[in-house]
Amino acid sequence: MTAISNQFLAKHRNKNLEELQQFLRIPSISSDAAHKQDMVHATQWIAQTLTEVGIENVQVMETGNHPVVYGEWLHADNAPTVLIYGHYDVQPVDPIELWETPPFEPNIRDNKLYARGAGDDKGQVFMQIKAIEAIMKTENKLPINVKFIYEGEEEIGSPSLGAFIETHKELLTADLLLVSDTTLEGEGQPSICYGLRGLTGLQIDIKGPASDLHSGAYGGAVQNPLHALSELLASMHDSKGRISIEGFYDDIHPLTEEEMTTYQQLSDDEALKKQLDVTELYGETGFSTKARLSARPTLEINGLWGGYQGEGIKTVIPSEAHAKITCRLVPGQDPTKILQDIESHIEKHCPAGVTANVTLFDHANPFITSYQHPAIQAAGESLEKIYKQKVLYTRMGGSVPIVETFNNLLKLPVILMGFGLENENYHAPNEHFHLENFDKGMETLVDYFHRIKDVL
Amino acid sequence: MTAISNQFLAKHRNKNLEELQQFLRIPSISSDAAHKQDMVHATQWIAQTLTEVGIENVQVMETGNHPVVYGEWLHADNAPTVLIYGHYDVQPVDPIELWETPPFEPNIRDNKLYARGAGDDKGQVFMQIKAIEAIMKTENKLPINVKFIYEGEEEIGSPSLGAFIETHKELLTADLLLVSDTTLEGEGQPSICYGLRGLTGLQIDIKGPASDLHSGAYGGAVQNPLHALSELLASMHDSKGRISIEGFYDDIHPLTEEEMTTYQQLSDDEALKKQLDVTELYGETGFSTKARLSARPTLEINGLWGGYQGEGIKTVIPSEAHAKITCRLVPGQDPTKILQDIESHIEKHCPAGVTANVTLFDHANPFITSYQHPAIQAAGESLEKIYKQKVLYTRMGGSVPIVETFNNLLKLPVILMGFGLENENYHAPNEHFHLENFDKGMETLVDYFHRIKDVL
Repeated sequence: MTAISNQFLAKHRNKNLEELQQFLRIPSISSDAAHKQDMVHATQWIAQTLTEVGIENVQVMETGNHPVVYGEWLHADNAPTVLIYGHYDVQPVDPIELWETPPFEPNIRDNKLYARGAGDDKGQVFMQIKAIEAIMKTENKLPINVKFIYEGEEEIGSPSLGAFIETHKELLTADLLLVSDTTLEGEGQPSICYGLRGLTGLQIDIKGPASDLHSGAYGGAVQNPLHALSELLASMHDSKGRISIEGFYDDIHPLTEEEMTTYQQLSDDEALKKQLDVTELYGETGFSTKARLSARPTLEINGLWGGYQGEGIKTVIPSEAHAKITCRLVPGQDPTKILQDIESHIEKHCPAGVTANVTLFDHANPFITSYQHPAIQAAGESLEKIYKQKVLYTRMGGSVPIVETFNNLLKLPVILMGFGLENENYHAPNEHFHLENFDKGMETLVDYFHRIKDVL
Repeated sequence: MTAISNQFLAKHRNKNLEELQQFLRIPSISSDAAHKQDMVHATQWIAQTLTEVGIENVQVMETGNHPVVYGEWLHADNAPTVLIYGHYDVQPVDPIELWETPPFEPNIRDNKLYARGAGDDKGQVFMQIKAIEAIMKTENKLPINVKFIYEGEEEIGSPSLGAFIETHKELLTADLLLVSDTTLEGEGQPSICYGLRGLTGLQIDIKGPASDLHSGAYGGAVQNPLHALSELLASMHDSKGRISIEGFYDDIHPLTEEEMTTYQQLSDDEALKKQLDVTELYGETGFSTKARLSARPTLEINGLWGGYQGEGIKTVIPSEAHAKITCRLVPGQDPTKILQDIESHIEKHCPAGVTANVTLFDHANPFITSYQHPAIQAAGESLEKIYKQKVLYTRMGGSVPIVETFNNLLKLPVILMGFGLENENYHAPNEHFHLENFDKGMETLVDYFHRIKDVL
């Protein structure tokens, strides 16, 4: 059965790529209020596409902020129901000047599709829909029941999704959640992610003198908010790359020796140094690079600013200084407790003469599941069939906060089958997606949707 | 004689204030290339005003960057020649949203003139010209010879002025340099500045991975340039507010016990805390606030930036991070040696996995002169006569780099007689100038131009 669908995909490849490029042209940046209309535009685009595929009961549903697109096809009797998740929102695009082609003008070079959202996650949303279309248009039905849920707040931490799922539990009932928002282990190396890091995202605002001061006239008399912030941020790590926040590591489930060995084997420091163009890697002493990347927590400054940033110099002591921070958390850590630990640290270490205020932006629990689950093993078989390579079961460094949310609220197995690659510049300039994974990914999904009907 | 000039000033007060506001409307920001034409406009304005006053040989002279305005009146036989200096360039205006009225739309409230440049330094340039006009228009001549030199690069460190003076040494020959770009000690408290701090201004650029990275996917594996910069900046001070750069304090001429006592007496910590709205002051342990402000060196971060600064969060490890720093230097310190000390510090303390690059922006030698000089004492007498208050001889925390430049190249006594106040927000939003010092300042200058002819 899958061969016909694959022929259909091959035949419609150009048309599909053109459609995807339409989708990518919509600048659906969820964090920026200026793009509110673009978000609506993106939901309309998805709703129309789902409808054209033959999906029923397609709705754009309000959440209080960016809407959710829902759709379903439920005519496969005695077959399982797969809830299919993705997100149509994308990251901001700055620094815009570093894009080789504009982020919302998709461009194909060297069999890679360049655009914001190409892989994270519009490209993968599109692949899910088109894999379903390929089956529907060739078999006039689906081997399984499907429900689609596409949200527009993943890049801002899915603040509305928990309440939405809670309110629509019955509508969303399913036997399995399929998420396509993760990456393969490497080019040609299929993998399935069975663990994700959690997240605590916050902003620190330092307030010093009532207004900006001339640094010649006042330098030496007052605490400079930029110094205070630097000192505070520097106090959050020790000289061995460990996080110095009291209590931060307390509740972590320790890694087994087997896990430590696996991570050691999966670490390729030389390749990573070359990829990132750095002279040396850096991180918590005592753990291999791969362990640090996926199974150990981090505290990263994502943004830092205050004072004068223009040309030349301006001799000013600014009144304020700011930092954005995200922590990635691993099983055992509680995002709320971590926030409290950070607040206590800031209270204790905030330099004299300024005040510090902390705002929580975002949080997500870490996620881990058993990769022995038959639905996950079936996904592995589909990947191995299409990629002709043994699948790796791994944990990922990123967070897909909704995975924990679904896991908690709907209590259903979650399969993270993503087709991106780690070096495709997600969240950075020149985001792109390898088109060989566009093709193979859809074939894998077609295979999986057939395979899963006999497993669950 | 001065009484008639003062009457003239009183009679023309409104007209003068209107003219000054015209001058302040020109956005002559020297650090921003976008304002190049406004700089030219400002020089034309000054040239025309000088000409109308009766100043001769008025010229706008090229420097390679922003031009210098020159003018002279040399018909006072057997009288000294005073070289009158000021600058027509102003600081940038950001954060623009904190201005109560727009920076280039002058506004008078509560007998204070609000505008960028109101006190630093266009207002004071205007006062010099109008004091000369008051004498010229009432006496048809001047008691002394005058030469004017107005530059447009003071706020960017006067990069062209040294070469300009060198080239025009003969044209600029004088017996005394009068600079009006400093502040009174306080409201109603006349003062003369006999020392200025020097300056080394630089930028640090940290470079990490080749491009911005997703902090979920790569956090834990690489040095984050924002962490590295925070750490590096934090390493520049110790816990007692002292600068930790090796060699930084080595060459300072120590303060005498008498100076230490004077600074202690001049320090009013409670008033300063209230003015700046801070819970406590902060600085180098072991020195009074006034000593720290004027006679001890500082290292201040003026700007700091990297990563995401927008709404919400963006989970990114930026490729770069940046800081702007100025050091204020005191007698004995050499700006070039200080730069080398900082470069050595950065080389030694730059965290693993990133590189640091240092760019020098600006430097000025510290300046100190004897306040016993008869020309300085005469200025004190003029101030005491008009302000009816004993004058204070003080050193200032800021730098007027050209003072050292003139001092070195022309070897002439420098009198720093300024009429600003320290709390008038120079370099900050809502810069303003007290109009009582506008009036008294011009009267003081009129008195001084008469007094000086018998002193030198």
